[in-house]
Amino acid sequence: MNDERQDGVAGRPDERDGLRAARIERALQRAFHNPRSGGTPPRLAAAMRAAVFGGGGRLRPHLCLAVAQACGDDHPRLADAAAAAVELLHCASLVHDDLPSFDDASHRRGRPTVHRVFGEPAAILAGDALVVLAFEQLARLDAEPPGRILGVLRALGAGVGHAGGIIAGQAWELEPRADLARYHRAKTGALFEAAAVAGAVAAGADPAPWREAARALGEAYQVADDIADALADPDELGKAVQRDAELGRPSAFDRFGPRGALERLGALESRALAALPAVAGRGVVERLIRRSVARLLPAGRAAAAM
Amino acid sequence: MNDERQDGVAGRPDERDGLRAARIERALQRAFHNPRSGGTPPRLAAAMRAAVFGGGGRLRPHLCLAVAQACGDDHPRLADAAAAAVELLHCASLVHDDLPSFDDASHRRGRPTVHRVFGEPAAILAGDALVVLAFEQLARLDAEPPGRILGVLRALGAGVGHAGGIIAGQAWELEPRADLARYHRAKTGALFEAAAVAGAVAAGADPAPWREAARALGEAYQVADDIADALADPDELGKAVQRDAELGRPSAFDRFGPRGALERLGALESRALAALPAVAGRGVVERLIRRSVARLLPAGRAAAAM
Repeated sequence: MNDERQDGVAGRPDERDGLRAARIERALQRAFHNPRSGGTPPRLAAAMRAAVFGGGGRLRPHLCLAVAQACGDDHPRLADAAAAAVELLHCASLVHDDLPSFDDASHRRGRPTVHRVFGEPAAILAGDALVVLAFEQLARLDAEPPGRILGVLRALGAGVGHAGGIIAGQAWELEPRADLARYHRAKTGALFEAAAVAGAVAAGADPAPWREAARALGEAYQVADDIADALADPDELGKAVQRDAELGRPSAFDRFGPRGALERLGALESRALAALPAVAGRGVVERLIRRSVARLLPAGRAAAAM
Repeated sequence: MNDERQDGVAGRPDERDGLRAARIERALQRAFHNPRSGGTPPRLAAAMRAAVFGGGGRLRPHLCLAVAQACGDDHPRLADAAAAAVELLHCASLVHDDLPSFDDASHRRGRPTVHRVFGEPAAILAGDALVVLAFEQLARLDAEPPGRILGVLRALGAGVGHAGGIIAGQAWELEPRADLARYHRAKTGALFEAAAVAGAVAAGADPAPWREAARALGEAYQVADDIADALADPDELGKAVQRDAELGRPSAFDRFGPRGALERLGALESRALAALPAVAGRGVVERLIRRSVARLLPAGRAAAAM
């Protein structure tokens, strides 16, 4: 949509991206490393790991860490754990969303879904266990400021809980009528917002100025997902397509049409960038937003069809 | 099994029991009262409330509060939230355990199960949301000592998580072989232990001396549940019976026989009582254990059959 972003994507990868990616993977591995005895049943352990380490763009934890970096990142271990928690909660929601009684998805991120490999009971328990792990590994940090840990926990609760979080978003799909904006805000925007808030809180900063940009990025992501669902090649997407239409879900693609949805994606990127606070470190978040939206654009055949 | 307990049960109800019961219900209601906007989809809200307010003995939150009381209960609001969290996590596990891919239970606590009333997707989401709520409502307490809140959160994580908690217990049922003691410790003992630890931590006390008694009470509860499942009248129990045998689960009843299981229940009560620490307030927990085990004994026809 504009040259600046195209250049950013074509150019050398931002070194910070790679460092952040490494921090995220280490933090996720650390979350699983629990010194407590008791033992994890092997099938459950395998299902949990498949849910978390089976690919995925890690966009939400990147946002969390980028905001922490923009705010000085003075407690990186807490920021890492916050980013891991965001991703664990996201993965948990995907595992449950793929279940037969929801999307009945056979593939996710190019691989068979957790319930197809490990069975439905193990998939349900793996999702449950990932939610618990997300919160618990934060509570286990004993060298970080307790007040900040609790702030991160509150942000995550808001991002996933029944009152406006991901779970509310999934549950709006069960209602005969749902407002598209409210549905998207809960299903996707809320965890993006929580990621940014958690990053700011982990770094001891006021989270308020980051909320709007995060919500806009989350909405952009949802619109891109609607477009991908309607148009993309399933091999390229790594999951089944046109499920939203089959399931009668509110979709930006259906509502605005192909061109309208694409314009909306661009408008949301602009809104996210404009909403960023004028702090010294904002550049790192700005680059992340530009790069992420570029990656969200439909590619190949799908783009040609638009 | 001994006269003292029978007297305790037949005599006037302990006033503390009633006060604790009222505190537990108030704390559960408070957990649902979330000032955040965003809105909860109506079906999800109804499913969550049905899971929590549909009866139940509240034994685990009683244990949590009784231990807090025995330890001085200097932060009752935190103890209340800890007790509520224990019950929310327990209810979440029941909702998921009743799902078609687990027990496929039609009734629980004398009523149709959550998925039978609200559908499977709403039941899965309600369980998820209750887990989140359990942690979140603790993180939201802003007038309680943050270090204690985090200690309570860690105890709860251990009680329900993949490494030895309830979820591990449920997942052992998916394994071809499971050690009976380890299975019971995870499936039931762990949350009893977490309840006692959370109560002690909420009151600023060392939780270690309470662990053993709580584990023994949890095991007693599991043995009683095995006996009930094998023998009880379904109308009296409020749920289907003989499911454990049908599902090929390890059961104390199958392993020790009717008389052996009953003796084991008595031995576990004695072990729980003997393990109580010699603190001034231990009487309140002692009475709770005696009363609870008496209530767990099979009644009527079932007892006669033993």
